Amino acid sequence: METSPETPRVLIIHGPNLNMLGAREPEVYGRATLEEIDAALFESAKRLGLALETFQSNHEGAIVEKIQSAMEKCQGLIINPAAYTHTSVAVRDALLLLNVPIVEVHLSNIQRRESFRHTSLVADIATGRISGFGARGYTLALDGMAGLLQL
Amino acid sequence: METSPETPRVLIIHGPNLNMLGAREPEVYGRATLEEIDAALFESAKRLGLALETFQSNHEGAIVEKIQSAMEKCQGLIINPAAYTHTSVAVRDALLLLNVPIVEVHLSNIQRRESFRHTSLVADIATGRISGFGARGYTLALDGMAGLLQL
Amino acid sequence: METSPETPRVLIIHGPNLNMLGAREPEVYGRATLEEIDAALFESAKRLGLALETFQSNHEGAIVEKIQSAMEKCQGLIINPAAYTHTSVAVRDALLLLNVPIVEVHLSNIQRRESFRHTSLVADIATGRISGFGARGYTLALDGMAGLLQL
Amino acid sequence: METSPETPRVLIIHGPNLNMLGAREPEVYGRATLEEIDAALFESAKRLGLALETFQSNHEGAIVEKIQSAMEKCQGLIINPAAYTHTSVAVRDALLLLNVPIVEVHLSNIQRRESFRHTSLVADIATGRISGFGARGYTLALDGMAGLLQL
Amino acid sequence: METSPETPRVLIIHGPNLNMLGAREPEVYGRATLEEIDAALFESAKRLGLALETFQSNHEGAIVEKIQSAMEKCQGLIINPAAYTHTSVAVRDALLLLNVPIVEVHLSNIQRRESFRHTSLVADIATGRISGFGARGYTLALDGMAGLLQL
Amino acid sequence: METSPETPRVLIIHGPNLNMLGAREPEVYGRATLEEIDAALFESAKRLGLALETFQSNHEGAIVEKIQSAMEKCQGLIINPAAYTHTSVAVRDALLLLNVPIVEVHLSNIQRRESFRHTSLVADIATGRISGFGARGYTLALDGMAGLLQL
Amino acid sequence: METSPETPRVLIIHGPNLNMLGAREPEVYGRATLEEIDAALFESAKRLGLALETFQSNHEGAIVEKIQSAMEKCQGLIINPAAYTHTSVAVRDALLLLNVPIVEVHLSNIQRRESFRHTSLVADIATGRISGFGARGYTLALDGMAGLLQL
Amino acid sequence: METSPETPRVLIIHGPNLNMLGAREPEVYGRATLEEIDAALFESAKRLGLALETFQSNHEGAIVEKIQSAMEKCQGLIINPAAYTHTSVAVRDALLLLNVPIVEVHLSNIQRRESFRHTSLVADIATGRISGFGARGYTLALDGMAGLLQL
Amino acid sequence: METSPETPRVLIIHGPNLNMLGAREPEVYGRATLEEIDAALFESAKRLGLALETFQSNHEGAIVEKIQSAMEKCQGLIINPAAYTHTSVAVRDALLLLNVPIVEVHLSNIQRRESFRHTSLVADIATGRISGFGARGYTLALDGMAGLLQL
Amino acid sequence: METSPETPRVLIIHGPNLNMLGAREPEVYGRATLEEIDAALFESAKRLGLALETFQSNHEGAIVEKIQSAMEKCQGLIINPAAYTHTSVAVRDALLLLNVPIVEVHLSNIQRRESFRHTSLVADIATGRISGFGARGYTLALDGMAGLLQL
Amino acid sequence: METSPETPRVLIIHGPNLNMLGAREPEVYGRATLEEIDAALFESAKRLGLALETFQSNHEGAIVEKIQSAMEKCQGLIINPAAYTHTSVAVRDALLLLNVPIVEVHLSNIQRRESFRHTSLVADIATGRISGFGARGYTLALDGMAGLLQL
Amino acid sequence: METSPETPRVLIIHGPNLNMLGAREPEVYGRATLEEIDAALFESAKRLGLALETFQSNHEGAIVEKIQSAMEKCQGLIINPAAYTHTSVAVRDALLLLNVPIVEVHLSNIQRRESFRHTSLVADIATGRISGFGARGYTLALDGMAGLLQL
Repeated sequence: METSPETPRVLIIHGPNLNMLGAREPEVYGRATLEEIDAALFESAKRLGLALETFQSNHEGAIVEKIQSAMEKCQGLIINPAAYTHTSVAVRDALLLLNVPIVEVHLSNIQRRESFRHTSLVADIATGRISGFGARGYTLALDGMAGLLQL
Repeated sequence: METSPETPRVLIIHGPNLNMLGAREPEVYGRATLEEIDAALFESAKRLGLALETFQSNHEGAIVEKIQSAMEKCQGLIINPAAYTHTSVAVRDALLLLNVPIVEVHLSNIQRRESFRHTSLVADIATGRISGFGARGYTLALDGMAGLLQL
Repeated sequence: METSPETPRVLIIHGPNLNMLGAREPEVYGRATLEEIDAALFESAKRLGLALETFQSNHEGAIVEKIQSAMEKCQGLIINPAAYTHTSVAVRDALLLLNVPIVEVHLSNIQRRESFRHTSLVADIATGRISGFGARGYTLALDGMAGLLQL
Repeated sequence: METSPETPRVLIIHGPNLNMLGAREPEVYGRATLEEIDAALFESAKRLGLALETFQSNHEGAIVEKIQSAMEKCQGLIINPAAYTHTSVAVRDALLLLNVPIVEVHLSNIQRRESFRHTSLVADIATGRISGFGARGYTLALDGMAGLLQL
Repeated sequence: METSPETPRVLIIHGPNLNMLGAREPEVYGRATLEEIDAALFESAKRLGLALETFQSNHEGAIVEKIQSAMEKCQGLIINPAAYTHTSVAVRDALLLLNVPIVEVHLSNIQRRESFRHTSLVADIATGRISGFGARGYTLALDGMAGLLQL
Repeated sequence: METSPETPRVLIIHGPNLNMLGAREPEVYGRATLEEIDAALFESAKRLGLALETFQSNHEGAIVEKIQSAMEKCQGLIINPAAYTHTSVAVRDALLLLNVPIVEVHLSNIQRRESFRHTSLVADIATGRISGFGARGYTLALDGMAGLLQL
Repeated sequence: METSPETPRVLIIHGPNLNMLGAREPEVYGRATLEEIDAALFESAKRLGLALETFQSNHEGAIVEKIQSAMEKCQGLIINPAAYTHTSVAVRDALLLLNVPIVEVHLSNIQRRESFRHTSLVADIATGRISGFGARGYTLALDGMAGLLQL
Repeated sequence: METSPETPRVLIIHGPNLNMLGAREPEVYGRATLEEIDAALFESAKRLGLALETFQSNHEGAIVEKIQSAMEKCQGLIINPAAYTHTSVAVRDALLLLNVPIVEVHLSNIQRRESFRHTSLVADIATGRISGFGARGYTLALDGMAGLLQL
Repeated sequence: METSPETPRVLIIHGPNLNMLGAREPEVYGRATLEEIDAALFESAKRLGLALETFQSNHEGAIVEKIQSAMEKCQGLIINPAAYTHTSVAVRDALLLLNVPIVEVHLSNIQRRESFRHTSLVADIATGRISGFGARGYTLALDGMAGLLQL
Repeated sequence: METSPETPRVLIIHGPNLNMLGAREPEVYGRATLEEIDAALFESAKRLGLALETFQSNHEGAIVEKIQSAMEKCQGLIINPAAYTHTSVAVRDALLLLNVPIVEVHLSNIQRRESFRHTSLVADIATGRISGFGARGYTLALDGMAGLLQL
Repeated sequence: METSPETPRVLIIHGPNLNMLGAREPEVYGRATLEEIDAALFESAKRLGLALETFQSNHEGAIVEKIQSAMEKCQGLIINPAAYTHTSVAVRDALLLLNVPIVEVHLSNIQRRESFRHTSLVADIATGRISGFGARGYTLALDGMAGLLQL
Repeated sequence: METSPETPRVLIIHGPNLNMLGAREPEVYGRATLEEIDAALFESAKRLGLALETFQSNHEGAIVEKIQSAMEKCQGLIINPAAYTHTSVAVRDALLLLNVPIVEVHLSNIQRRESFRHTSLVADIATGRISGFGARGYTLALDGMAGLLQL
């Protein structure tokens, strides 16, 4: 993520099991792999004038620490917390450390799934939320982030 | 909404009290009036190759009938049901009549407001959902709709 | 509804979205349009010696006012409140104004649908309730009303 | 229940305490005894071209076994499960064995009584439901059954 | 409502079914018609030095728009939302647009009625609340409003 | 409270911590002390033709016994149960001993405060209820009481 | 139960598993067998001038029918519904047929046991209730019944 | 309460508002005053060989201290906590100090009253419970206490 | 069940509707009839050195009494309570009489079915639980029982 | 509590039944009497440079008034509300009058006891909370108070 | 796990804290260490013709990734999720990636423990479930797995 | 942590995000960094005669394993589980392995924050609990631990 100092930097975090995207249930989650999604995001970011870093982990603690690391160096954070949406107060607490816009993304519409997925521990601290648009949801989120950063 | 027959038509519905946008609490809802938002939407639609119709009403029955009217002539519907999000089974039932993608939009992040606003009667029948981006949320929704229509 | 003064008058109210009957999901709601259902009801009414008026609206306020109008002139009321079954205290309050038997009808068995449809604001003030028989439910309701009126 | 082989056979089951009908609280449940109700039902059945069997028991197990016995020989089942409406999963499981239309009948409108009577373990597996019409409810049920059997 | 510019203007809104006051259940709601109540209110207003406008509707949307219209021209609003007390987020949202004292009035003590009437969507945004005094409640509300306006 | 025998007598009870009125948080509860409020009430009572007794205690048992003492000698009771509104079945039981109109008063709108304050053990046995008008609420209550006593 | 016609007759019903009394867990339920308890009850009855019949069954239907049989011939009913206390609406419905005082007895204090035992379907239709006194509870119940029959 | 040292001593506590017994609603609570009830209890106690002390208070703290005083000098405690049944953890905590049998008595069957009366903070620490027998319930309780003390 | 005195005896109880196994929904419950399942169990028992008795009933009372009969003669009990899993406190109470290991078996995984099936009144008193393995679940249960009996 | 004017004054309140400390269940609450605890507290206070007043009452009203009295003269308040922790809004309201740090103390860990003890009406208005350390908890509280007062 | 290609491969996952088995509370969890349990499982697997891999981790992310790794190479999965049973949506999501039978095992009967252990996030996606048989439960699970794989 | 063998050893665990202390929101959490807090704790420990080890991690599994490691070598454990307070059964299960006093510490008063923070999975297994004193809470906890270890 080498950019000129004035380019706003955005961190995108993909939560647990998203490393398996494309490998199964393509009719639900689409055929794109996480690598392909990230590639498309870097293209969008270039177009929008944003510097991007992406990160995936299945480990709650690792996600917590990645978010902490953004305190100094990012102007915006986009997160698809996946399973940790519903269970991780630690991720929420790390996000509470930040002073920048947060966008929560979900590939599927979580309101259509099991009832325990209707509760998000991130929802009320996110600035904006996008769900149900599949991989395109990330691009919309990046676009929305540009708006929140008033680019 | 005069367009060539093959242009996909999208209906955008603004629910109750949205006719007052811009007139109050601009720090919450922004300074744009509904007219200005609609104007921006028509521009975006032109760029995306979509035909647009917009509609606002404070009357549940009128919104129901507008949705019914879309059965034959629209390929996509974007709705900010506002207060009816939480109370109108009639709006939900009308939406259930449609066979096209539905995108639910909210200007503010409704998870940050009173707890009765956390329940949406539209959430589980919408294809995609966007909230918290202010007026820009409509543009994102139109962009997302273009994706759902595979433009 | 011109009848001899001594013929009991029954008002039948169809709630929101029932104007779309027959136009969609015929496997669920049957192929009969509301016009066809009303025609069959008028025939049954003639056979049972009842005068009939039917009314459909998508507007809560209009249904409220129609019920109010029945205070003076009807001996029985049959209502399929559709979506307003679950949300309208105003319709309930209007029904509470009446002194005549009330029969609640639903085309489908609402206990088989979303859980918010299991609650009816009309249930405990109706005299009789019929659901799950499709269009024939109206005829059964009319027949049951004749019994309640001791015809 | 001797009828020609092609006559559809309907089993009517009366649950616990219905053997006491007519003996008490006639203002609530009417003055008709169960014998009188059954007699009227046989008359209606003859008119509708249905063969009828009726059965009453206060024993959950006996009702379960009667329902089981209907698997081979009935084309429709009408049941007033009375108290077992609210408590018997065994009756529900027996009904789940059947492949024929089921109509649930209650003499009174159970939504007007104690709150534990508002839950029915049969409701979501019944095809049609009728309540609040007193003894006439059975006749309406038989009529509705004829419709479900497309007579 | 023609008054000198400095006279504070108060809007009184009567919700659904209140147009039927006096016509039924006078032992519950009193014998006064809405016209008589309004007449008494105009007298009180004159005594208190308030300009008054009154409005009744059975239509949620119409009430919403009447409240919106008060944004510019009223210094206080008294509302008996009747059935919409318990179901209308749209009315609540319209009231949230106002910057003036709001008084919620109910003819009967709603805590003595069905449990769904114990919840009011207006309660926590009203300045003052009065219930259970019948028609006199409106006069008390007007008196209380005068106090809130420091007359 | 020396009055002619035919003057209706009203008892006003102030619950716990109301002896501190005026001493703290005047922006919330107003600057008037309880003595000043009582003085104003005696004036209003004189104007309305009512005999008045007022009483304040922080002790649940003392309030219970004061209410008991009103059985023989009062025609109306006005009570601001303060904290005991939400916790005292004993106060409720004492009020149930009375045969006279009861008016419940709260200085603030308790629906705007902690959720445990939304429940009142007095609400469903009070005749009328007034809240959110500050000290003026007592005067309105006395006026309303005069109405209930048909003065 | 041969007695003079004017001797009041009381039926005592022991519910499921009470036939095992004395055979296990004597420290909980005492060492007395059901036969010994019944013998003591007959002695008490003689002293109190009551005619007695006792009955035990593990079958819900049998208990229902025993209660039905008491409609004509008993002046009071004492029941320890045991497990059916918490699950049998059928037993409740049978008890509702009676016009005589009903006393509910439990050997142990059911409020000290599993939470599902805290709910009794008989509690609100019983005249009196006694629990926690072991076998002596039956004698107290008989004594209390004599009082209810004003002996 | 002067008795020989070996006579077991029982304390009977009457909770708030029971000092008004007999003065109102005799059809509900009977015509006996508390003095008459106590007199009957002293007679029963003499017959059973028990020494008795009785106490009534409307003050939670006074009841707590009376119970504390029983730690050294009583072998059994009978309490009708009245309103404090449902609200006083302090009374419960005082009872937890005792090592003797506790019997909870209620004049009426509290399961037939408001739902908040269905919860007793004493229920699971009482040895025995008696309700619904009116004043005779105290005598039954004393008799039951004699049994618990193995007299 | 004739075996040498030292052979441990195990009772297997099949609850309501299990007599219909194999006759319907074989894709769900398998094609084996209850007779075939029992035959396989007797074979397994012989191999494991266990004496076996099997019992099926649709009657709660009959199951209760069968369990009671096992008090003296069995060293282990395996039960598939079927519908009574969720509704029978009487079966639970009978099981509480026993001092031997209890294994609860379900053919299907009850956590995948209606929510009322997620609660088992037997779960917390069973030693071991097995579900979702179809008919093989009984064999696993017998094998597990052998382990619990330390064979 | 005679101290130099600049010594901070701390009030310690012991709630109901704490006057019995040491007299019973020493294994639970320790062997120290309240007098001994107070003595140790005065020693600690001297060491920390705090002036101390201690107070115990079983009367809710007395505790309320003691707290009120602290408004003028104390810089900190330590309270073990005992049973009133869970039931007294009056104590909470009195505490809300204060502008000084409040420390809530419990001898035992109330999260290990009955579920109704898990709710504290003081918890969210206390500055600090300490539980489960027995009598030493008071000393820790005094030490913590010194910290809050920045001594 | 070297086996011929056609041998079905089963992965067994032990959740957090199971590495401590045998070291503490042997009366609850048995004396066998995890190593001894695994050794017994490898023996059983050889007898059943199954290839086995076992894995233990205290890290949610590590368990998620182990499950992901099974997508390609296992025909069955047995999991004792231990604490993660109740809290890990991430583990559930990983299991949802698999197309093979899943068996959930618990050493103890979790229905006998704290209520938060009664909910399993794995229960409704497991094929079979076994609990309460201690270490033998794993062997039963392996045996059941062989059945599910139709060996 | 080099100490003489008889010095009691205490382990202090800091949960997720506590590594960021001092870096943000100092007005809430104070300005001290975790290093400074630990330094102060080592000083206090020396004074109290305790050997100390401190540990911080954002990883649930790492915390679980640290707790496991304390089984053999610690006499007391102080833990601020931070976010894992509310979500980690694994941490609870590890703590259940220990036989030593456990003290739960929170910097802020968690009862003042979001409602999901009001539930602690550690609360009922901790010996003592301290919250709301900021960094000083740790020193109080160490002091309290010394008391629990009877130093």
